[in-house]
Amino acid sequence: MGSTEVMLDLSIYAAEVAGAAKLASRDLAMATGAQKNCFLHRAAELVRRKSKDVLDANNVDVGAAPELGLNSAAIDRLTLTPSRLESAARALEEIAALPDPVGETIEASVRPNGLHVSRVRVPLGVVFFIYESRPNVTLDAAGICVKSGNAVILRGGKEAIHTNRALHALLCEALNDADLPRDGVQLVQTTEREAVGHFLKLNDKIDVTIPRGGRSLIERVAAEATMPVIKHYDGICHVYIDRAADFQMARDIVVNSKCQRPGVCNAAECLLVHRDIAERFLTLLAPDLAQRRVEARCCQRSRGLIPNSRAASEMDYRTEFLDLILAVRVVDDLEQAIEHIEANGSHHTDAIVTNDLAAARRFTAAVDSAAVMVNASTRFNDGGELGLGAEIGISTDKFHARGPCGLRELTSSKFIVEGQGQVRG
Amino acid sequence: MGSTEVMLDLSIYAAEVAGAAKLASRDLAMATGAQKNCFLHRAAELVRRKSKDVLDANNVDVGAAPELGLNSAAIDRLTLTPSRLESAARALEEIAALPDPVGETIEASVRPNGLHVSRVRVPLGVVFFIYESRPNVTLDAAGICVKSGNAVILRGGKEAIHTNRALHALLCEALNDADLPRDGVQLVQTTEREAVGHFLKLNDKIDVTIPRGGRSLIERVAAEATMPVIKHYDGICHVYIDRAADFQMARDIVVNSKCQRPGVCNAAECLLVHRDIAERFLTLLAPDLAQRRVEARCCQRSRGLIPNSRAASEMDYRTEFLDLILAVRVVDDLEQAIEHIEANGSHHTDAIVTNDLAAARRFTAAVDSAAVMVNASTRFNDGGELGLGAEIGISTDKFHARGPCGLRELTSSKFIVEGQGQVRG
Repeated sequence: MGSTEVMLDLSIYAAEVAGAAKLASRDLAMATGAQKNCFLHRAAELVRRKSKDVLDANNVDVGAAPELGLNSAAIDRLTLTPSRLESAARALEEIAALPDPVGETIEASVRPNGLHVSRVRVPLGVVFFIYESRPNVTLDAAGICVKSGNAVILRGGKEAIHTNRALHALLCEALNDADLPRDGVQLVQTTEREAVGHFLKLNDKIDVTIPRGGRSLIERVAAEATMPVIKHYDGICHVYIDRAADFQMARDIVVNSKCQRPGVCNAAECLLVHRDIAERFLTLLAPDLAQRRVEARCCQRSRGLIPNSRAASEMDYRTEFLDLILAVRVVDDLEQAIEHIEANGSHHTDAIVTNDLAAARRFTAAVDSAAVMVNASTRFNDGGELGLGAEIGISTDKFHARGPCGLRELTSSKFIVEGQGQVRG
Repeated sequence: MGSTEVMLDLSIYAAEVAGAAKLASRDLAMATGAQKNCFLHRAAELVRRKSKDVLDANNVDVGAAPELGLNSAAIDRLTLTPSRLESAARALEEIAALPDPVGETIEASVRPNGLHVSRVRVPLGVVFFIYESRPNVTLDAAGICVKSGNAVILRGGKEAIHTNRALHALLCEALNDADLPRDGVQLVQTTEREAVGHFLKLNDKIDVTIPRGGRSLIERVAAEATMPVIKHYDGICHVYIDRAADFQMARDIVVNSKCQRPGVCNAAECLLVHRDIAERFLTLLAPDLAQRRVEARCCQRSRGLIPNSRAASEMDYRTEFLDLILAVRVVDDLEQAIEHIEANGSHHTDAIVTNDLAAARRFTAAVDSAAVMVNASTRFNDGGELGLGAEIGISTDKFHARGPCGLRELTSSKFIVEGQGQVRG
């Protein structure tokens, strides 16, 4: 590691970085949409034009990865290719095409005394973003933060530091070209683990921290942070097949929810089936699962219906497998399905398959999850799919942001009150 | 104190209270608007019908107040009268008249693949509300929380415990009459200080904590809480008189902002005046201030213009006086006024008086406060005045809720996605 990483005092370093970001955030908050889009287009252009620099830096990281103990999946996530860089550049252009959230009037009214009251969207200020591995996230996060008028402090993983430095250089150049403050996008230059703790103390300079990674990282950040944290915990997602389900639709949705990308948070982990149709439905579904090598972990009532399944433990119903494993349970009715989801789920994404309107209504009202699906795959809980555009994460909190966090979720609001001399009586 | 206050284990007590509130919150989340309004009207009726019980209990508290060290202002805040109770009952009826925030569709769209996506408002869950003295707040907070579909745990001050118990009994009766769970409104029965700390650990059962009181209380709660906190810090509010101000309007606004109720957070603490009009304006204003016994603490340039003023210290510009004291500073221009506010203010409420549209625009864009006023008194930053109806506090945070917190600020959202069998490709 280079000498830039020898920080005599990490707390001074953190305060300097965050202080510069805070200053820059004031200019970014007032930047025009045109300036922010100029930054995004310039950044995309530079990613393409200077792709060799980025790929060279990435080679250094990839070469050092085995030594850091990364497995092949992690090394794959770390590796950039010309086509992955092109996708990242296009993602920046897509952010540019989104409407500017800043300045949007959320609501407005004229009060009886003639005061014009409006509530307008303003940026949060400074975002501290902690993430791992995938270097395209560096570009994505910077793009989303700047577009929403926020400064961002990027803390990538140690394994990607050279790639992130190369990308950060491009981002600074693009800020400069757009006449925006270069300090608006900061990269934590040290890879020391303790650095994060120093940033988490700076609630006078950082407005929100977003950790993206494993549960232990998020828990540590949430415990240490003195500012708000947008958390992104497990997705223990369910598909409930109601008595009144269309079986072909139900099979498609179960297979898609479980298998389309099993390693992500909105993949289904548990299948609940109404007892009245359990035998017929599971008999139909069993070959679908077998064909895709899905291991079923079943309750007593379902086990005999799915060949080669094993018995589910209580823990299986509370586990985010992130793998081709599906917990299965037959329930007595809709209410028991809802009870199961509330007791075992993680309030992330849950689906019902039914043609019964009353059942659909009851399910969407009673299941307290960030996204509740009716006759659709759980995999649709995603910023792009739900129409938010780019997302910086999927919040499992209920406070401030719930579900996919796009541009608006990185904003706050301000009341603007215009009068003609009104005073309060 | 009664034997109910001898709690062998406060942590078990806290977990039981919060657990019961969490259970109740599921029913409250699905209560109809009619049920919630029935609760509010019944509570108002019971407050009127059983006012003698409440006033008797209040007498006990008021009698014990001197022993607890309350000064006369605090005893006044604690004291209920028939007319104060009538106001509190009417406030409950006003909450009933507000639209139900729960179930409101925040946005909706149809995606290109035919998915119907809507984002609907849902309650946060359980609110832990910590407050002092004024017993009408007990009714207000319970009313706002239930109307927004939340359960609430009320932690009033020790000095009001008998009054709060009497009010809580009425609230439980009203919940019962509306067929809502009695555990939806809980009163912390012990007055032990340590009890609060146990509740603050329960982030699996409590969704948000709202402390209303002095800075040290809020700081302690924010530091200890494991769940989100809506904070309500100082209001160091400014009125800036621009070069292009109407002087009569400016005088009215300064006097109203400072004097109409000096002890509250949206009262002005600092007056900034453009140098070009400082002499003429302050000469006109000085008698207004003198007449209302406002002590002016002035910068060098303003001191000679206000008779009997004293020199302001740097600290005076960063102090929430909550009294008839006004810091005064002459600034070179609009930009210096904005700089002063950003450097010294508390991002609460700041006003400009001007007839110059460009100056008004620049001020509202650059001043990063919860409410920015143009030609209106700072005193209008209030839930009722801004059209939110009842408020449970004024947030000085930017995250989740900023400014007055009404019904909507006690809600989260949920995506409801309705398909016809869509799966992700």
